[in-house]
Formats: sequence, C-alpha cells, structure tokens
Amino acid sequence: MKNTDRCSSKPDDFTFLEKGEIENLCYRTLSHHRFSEKQAKALTEFLVAAEIDGCRSHGIYRLLYIIDSLRKGGVVADAQPQIEDVAPGLVKVNAKGGLSPLAFNSGVELLKRKCEESGVAILAINHCVHVTALWVEVEKLARQGIVSLACNPTHSYVAPYGGLNPLLGTNPFAFGWPRDSGTPFVFDFATSEASRGDIELHHREKKPIPEGWGVDRLGNPTQDPGEVLNFGAMLPFGGHKGSALSIMIELLAGPLIGDMTSLESSAHDQGRGCIPYHGEVIIAIDPSVTRGTTAKNGMAGAEQLFSTIIYQGARLPSQRRYEERKKNTSNGVKIDAGLLKEIEGLVK
Amino acid sequence: MKNTDRCSSKPDDFTFLEKGEIENLCYRTLSHHRFSEKQAKALTEFLVAAEIDGCRSHGIYRLLYIIDSLRKGGVVADAQPQIEDVAPGLVKVNAKGGLSPLAFNSGVELLKRKCEESGVAILAINHCVHVTALWVEVEKLARQGIVSLACNPTHSYVAPYGGLNPLLGTNPFAFGWPRDSGTPFVFDFATSEASRGDIELHHREKKPIPEGWGVDRLGNPTQDPGEVLNFGAMLPFGGHKGSALSIMIELLAGPLIGDMTSLESSAHDQGRGCIPYHGEVIIAIDPSVTRGTTAKNGMAGAEQLFSTIIYQGARLPSQRRYEERKKNTSNGVKIDAGLLKEIEGLVK
Repeated sequence: MKNTDRCSSKPDDFTFLEKGEIENLCYRTLSHHRFSEKQAKALTEFLVAAEIDGCRSHGIYRLLYIIDSLRKGGVVADAQPQIEDVAPGLVKVNAKGGLSPLAFNSGVELLKRKCEESGVAILAINHCVHVTALWVEVEKLARQGIVSLACNPTHSYVAPYGGLNPLLGTNPFAFGWPRDSGTPFVFDFATSEASRGDIELHHREKKPIPEGWGVDRLGNPTQDPGEVLNFGAMLPFGGHKGSALSIMIELLAGPLIGDMTSLESSAHDQGRGCIPYHGEVIIAIDPSVTRGTTAKNGMAGAEQLFSTIIYQGARLPSQRRYEERKKNTSNGVKIDAGLLKEIEGLVK
Repeated sequence: MKNTDRCSSKPDDFTFLEKGEIENLCYRTLSHHRFSEKQAKALTEFLVAAEIDGCRSHGIYRLLYIIDSLRKGGVVADAQPQIEDVAPGLVKVNAKGGLSPLAFNSGVELLKRKCEESGVAILAINHCVHVTALWVEVEKLARQGIVSLACNPTHSYVAPYGGLNPLLGTNPFAFGWPRDSGTPFVFDFATSEASRGDIELHHREKKPIPEGWGVDRLGNPTQDPGEVLNFGAMLPFGGHKGSALSIMIELLAGPLIGDMTSLESSAHDQGRGCIPYHGEVIIAIDPSVTRGTTAKNGMAGAEQLFSTIIYQGARLPSQRRYEERKKNTSNGVKIDAGLLKEIEGLVK
C-alpha cells in the first residue's frame, strides 16, 4: 500500500502499510534469518503492536538491531524457553538467549494461575535478549483482569544522579491495570529522561536532542545524540528519585532473580553492540483476591480517579497510544521509506 | 540535655536531646492522650527513627498533627489491628482507624513467613491513619533479608501532570534491599516534587518554597507555601513519569486492596484537616527463593552496582540518613526549641 496523497508534501518519504503487511514483513524477515516459527511469531506480535501504537522506537525499526545482533552472535534464533515452577508465587522462564516475547508468552499462563491462587506472583525471565516494549506484556495481563508491574535493565547507558559515567540501563518500568470497559490503564516509561531508541532515531535523522537527555564524555550537557550514545552518558528522569527507581530496577530484574545488571550486560557484550542480555521481572496481582470482601465499591475508586484526571484536562498515560492504534488500524501505519527499504534489504 | 556551645550562635533556638529522651517525650505525650501501650510504643519507634535520621518532617513534629487529629476524631488511639491470613501470598491487616506503625508491626511476621514460602507476598494494611515514614518499614524487612516495595496514598494534594487541581496524594514510594554487611540499600521518596511535610515546615518557618514545588489557585507557579497548601496544588516530580507513578500508587494501595484513594481520603476528612485515612501496600520478596540455584554470584551484582555508584562520586540514596543516624546517636539530636515547647505543651 504505497502512499499517494495522504498527509505529506513529500510523498516519496514514507509509505502506508496495513497491519497485516507489517506482520508479513516482520515474520518474513525473521524466518529468512532462521528464527523458529514460535520465536518469529511472538516477536512479530510485539514489534507490530508497538508500530501500530505509534511507538516507532520499539517497532519494526528494531528488526535492524535484531538481525545485526543475530549476525554478531548475540541472539539465539531458535531458543526454546524452559519453564520452571519454583514456588507458589514464582515462575521462572529461562529464555536461553532468545528474545523475551516468547519467554513471556510461555510463562504467562502459569503466572496467571499462581496469582489467582496466591494473590500475587512473580514471573522472572532469565537469560533473555530484550528489545521490545513492556506495555505489550502488562496490557495483555490487564486484559485478563490482572494488575502488573514489569521492569528490566538494559546496558550501561545512564549515569546515576550525581555521577558522570554510564552505569544504569534505560530501565523501563511498566504498569497495567484492568478496566471493566474500555482500554486498560497502562504506562511504560524509560527511567532515563529519554529512551535510547529515541536518541538513536535522532542520530539516524541527524537531529539534535533536547537538553537534559544526556551529557558528553566530560559530563557536560550536550545536544549531540552521537556524543551521548558513544562517549557520554544518558541522564535519569526526575533527578535523584528517577535515579533511585532505576537502581531498584537493576536490583529487581538483576541480582534478585540471579541475572545480570546493565553493567554486567554491557561487559558480557564485549563491545559488539548487541542487544542487552539480562533478566526481566513481572509482578502480577489478582485484584479479585486482594480487594477483599469488605470493599464497598470494587474498582470504582479507580474509575473515579481516571475520570477526575480527564475532567481537569489531563491525559491518561496510555491515551495517545490507544488513539494511534485506532487510527493506524483503520488507516494503515506511516512507515519511513528509507527504513522500509533497509528492512526489505535484510531478506536479500 | 540543653544545648550550650554546640554548633550555634543562637543557643536558645534549639536543644539537643538524646535518643532515650526523645522516646520518653513521644511515649509520654501519646500515653497522656490515652494511646494504648502498643499503639504508643509502635508510633514512638517510627517517629524517633525519623528524628534520629534527620528526617524532621516525619519525626516528632508529627506529634502535633497526631494529637490535633485525635482531638478532631480522626485517630483511634486504642485501635487493635486485626490480622487476616487471606491467601498464600496475602496478609491483610485492618488497622481499625489506628495509626499504621502498629498495623505494620502486627502483620510483618506473617508477611515474612509467606514470602519465604511463596517467593513473594503482599501485606495490605486497611483503614489506617498514615503519617510516618515508609523507609522504617522497608529497612526493617531488609534487615531480615527481605526485599520490599511499599507505598500509600495520602490526601488530594497534587495535580496530575497536565492538570491543575489537587487530586493525587504525595504518595510515597519506598524500597529496601538487604546487604550482607553494612546498612541496607533503602530509598523512600514522595512522588510529589517535595514532601507535604517540607512545605509545612517552610510555612511554619515563613520561608518561600523553591520553584517547581507547587502552583497557586489559578495554576500559576508560586513560592508561597501557604498558597500551595491551602488553595493551589503541589506538583508531581519528574513530569508525566512521576505523575504516572503516583497514579499507580493510588491504585495499588487504594482500590486494589479495597481501600480509599487520596481523593476519597480527602472527602472522608470533610475539611477537618485530619491525617489521611486509607490503606498501604507492601510487596515483599525473598531473594533466597527468587535468586535460584543457577545464580553464579548471589547478590554480588548488587554490591558491584553500589560500589560503582560511589566510585564515580555519586551517593547511595540512604547514605545521608545513615550518616545522620550515626552522628545523632552519639551527639544527640538538635531539636527546634519552639517545636519542643509546643510538644511539651501537649501534655499540660
């Protein structure tokens, strides 16, 4: 579906693709590179979900990074995740060097059953290669009535508050909350001021980054994305509080589950520039257990909170994404023509 | 222990009290107002812990607020918390209108046992009056080898990102991580840019607040603490990310456990100006279960992370408090003479 006259003065710069076309592109690319059927399906689901929601930095752009990492030996394309039922509140999935989506999908049923029985349960994914958006996972759980928090380290990209050198990951933190009607309440943010993907896109497009996103090799503020990516450090959001949260994520999704911190993931990479290799933690809670029988009004307090946010002109965190999803599902997704060409080049 | 020549040019403005003296002052004040022995002991422990650590806004200053709320009918001084063993991963404690410390202390043993068995467990405190610091709780758990996250709503004080009216609480978020040697890694921050207590102290001391802490009744930035406290709104930290985190806390420690949001707590207060009345959630994880047997190096990744933070000249979140604790335990705590007089006046 080529762009002709929709919304652009430079029609050759982009293309509109329908959801099915993007799925085919993804799956074909991954299959060509000998990803197993299960791996390719799970990964396609996650990448396309991001692309449809307008999260370009976590969409099909990631295919370039995935195939590059595969070529460098940083991804196991046919990994078969191994599920371990460790304790009443703990499922562990060893991703065996594969990407995280299949590992998540493999463990999520047992996770759900456990938190229905115990009230709360953890899904710990180990030894995974991680490049996809967390909101896909917490939204899935929310659509099954489960509240969840998810987080993971990445590579050492971000200086801790008060420091100058890269140490912490961009460490995303996501949360999902089920709603009886409409779309779940979901947020997913990098604990860095900006996501690494956004800085990479600025670098690709030769655009300066906003102030506050990073520092140069001497620790001075810079707007040069290349300097931040290659020599300086990214900065945490929200000063010492965001930095503390990022450290917490390192601990929860690292040593707590016997896996690597961002520092260790970077060391493991040995300068190859592969996708981060580490763990992920999902804490899942069943509100039908925790709410108790004495609660007067079920989840109504939550709905009142959401209405009051919207009433005063503010937006719910997931609102923009859901609007994009609606629009892009019916109109198709605007894809940068250069990017599309590059992805298509991967199967030649 | 009156101040004579220590660190001040105006010796009459403050007094040094030893830990035991502050404990006596607290306990005596609470007993005088007919707090049960158990309630008074638990509350004294929490308030003195904050005072010793230099957290003035959560220390004995809170006695004024507690007794004021008691007089207005907002605190049950002899409440006996009721413990309910709900599920393998869930302990509920009904605080029955009492302050949170005794409720926490009552449920913590069962919480610990549950998370040792299940890997993860939740302590949900319901119907409590909440005015003390969360780090006291997560530090206690960390000293018993348990990782924990704790949070609670307050009253509607903070505008959501993009909004103008008070809706969210100051919603503290705390995290504790055990360490084999030395003090646990602990942080505890308000998801508002500043804590309510700090703005109140500025108001008491007639000092302007820094920019970014709050807005006036028209939504414009202001440095007048009284305007923010009484007519405007506080602001969340870290823009939309801090705001999202604050909403998450409303949900987790509110409707998730069948309790009130900050909005509902404020409505319940009916303008009396009592301490917030709501729930609290503590998620506790036993690392000896979650780490797994395949972990190469136990918690060493965490220790490497901490060393690398310190090595580059940054501070661990809890460092300042621990230093204050050490200093104040040996030298006594500097207490504002006016505040001391006011507290002593409570038993007359």
